[in-house]
Amino acid sequence: MTTELPLTTLTRVRRGAHHQRTDRAALYDIVDTAMYATVAIVRDDRPVALPVGIGRDGDDLLIHGSTGSDFFRRIAGGTPVSLTITHLLGMKYARSLFDSSMRYLCAVVHGVASVVPPEQKEAALLLLSEHLMPGRSADVRAMTAREIAATLVLRVPLAEASVKDNAGSLVEVDDDGEDRTVWAGMLPLRVVAGEPVTSPQTATGTPVPESVRRAAARVAASGTA
Amino acid sequence: MTTELPLTTLTRVRRGAHHQRTDRAALYDIVDTAMYATVAIVRDDRPVALPVGIGRDGDDLLIHGSTGSDFFRRIAGGTPVSLTITHLLGMKYARSLFDSSMRYLCAVVHGVASVVPPEQKEAALLLLSEHLMPGRSADVRAMTAREIAATLVLRVPLAEASVKDNAGSLVEVDDDGEDRTVWAGMLPLRVVAGEPVTSPQTATGTPVPESVRRAAARVAASGTA
Repeated sequence: MTTELPLTTLTRVRRGAHHQRTDRAALYDIVDTAMYATVAIVRDDRPVALPVGIGRDGDDLLIHGSTGSDFFRRIAGGTPVSLTITHLLGMKYARSLFDSSMRYLCAVVHGVASVVPPEQKEAALLLLSEHLMPGRSADVRAMTAREIAATLVLRVPLAEASVKDNAGSLVEVDDDGEDRTVWAGMLPLRVVAGEPVTSPQTATGTPVPESVRRAAARVAASGTA
Repeated sequence: MTTELPLTTLTRVRRGAHHQRTDRAALYDIVDTAMYATVAIVRDDRPVALPVGIGRDGDDLLIHGSTGSDFFRRIAGGTPVSLTITHLLGMKYARSLFDSSMRYLCAVVHGVASVVPPEQKEAALLLLSEHLMPGRSADVRAMTAREIAATLVLRVPLAEASVKDNAGSLVEVDDDGEDRTVWAGMLPLRVVAGEPVTSPQTATGTPVPESVRRAAARVAASGTA
């Protein structure tokens, strides 16, 4: 893949075009610090979008769901899909409501998914697991053939995607014509992980695994999920 | 509006149906603690979804955008829309990867928007502002006629919507057949507001307004944004 994302009729940002990023690294940063994407399809001529856990395998986005899911089966069947990831980083308070806005990173990936073939499914599921719960696969038993068979794993190439980065600037231009004694600024928002909660049926004295601590540290580092 | 959300072909949850909530109060809680929805439309036979700031006016969801936005103009023109709000509340660590999942609340609203007429626009924009930046409208100058004219305000009835609540339970059933010396539990995730950042051109000594503190407190109370 090239380091630049192509500008196409699907990916060219139409509003706030100066916030568009076309470097692939920006896209991968957003993907790698997200737990889910909001996945949209067209169903019976209407849009429908659901949150779906994600992973990344090189230049592909991975998603998975039940083989019994109508939504996933449609995607597996080749209906076009878009996957939107938003990291809301704060609220920008300008000196007018009109110029106020959100501080965010957003990636929208467009594509058609391909079904991961049976012999590659376990490796792809482990990649998804590593993305969502790093290190966890070593804590638990292996997947069974039945579990693998019950899961659809889909691959969407990170080939056609737009990235909007509205995070960098503070709210004002040099001369916005407004009264500077009105406070302007930004209220930062971030995601944090709390203390892990042990389920009541876990054997007494079982410690919280290192993997869970590591997942919490990763959220703390990115401030996103 | 009735207190129960109707079950239709669009709103009946197909997977994990026992997590579906049909009480309107659950929907309004999700909306009222969210800054944005991921708004999906069909454009040239393909899905596309973008994050959009929201507000609520009684039984309607409000969104707004530029009159120059192709995306908003299509919605204003009557193309069907879905609005997805997800509150990711944590990661559920089961004793197998297969049974692990996310802890979340999700609302999907389906509908066709109507355009808020000129004489109701200012009031609707103030409602949006109150939702996103409570109390801020009293800190800043009034909107101008030109700003109001440049903004499309759209109303989507909260009539056809599905709510999925995967937040309540911890990860295990009474007998999951797994080794109980393997830790299971939940890593909670929440959104927090940081310290407000004052823009460099704000007049020296201007305090952070009470409204910004209030917005931060609201995020702290809900843990979502």
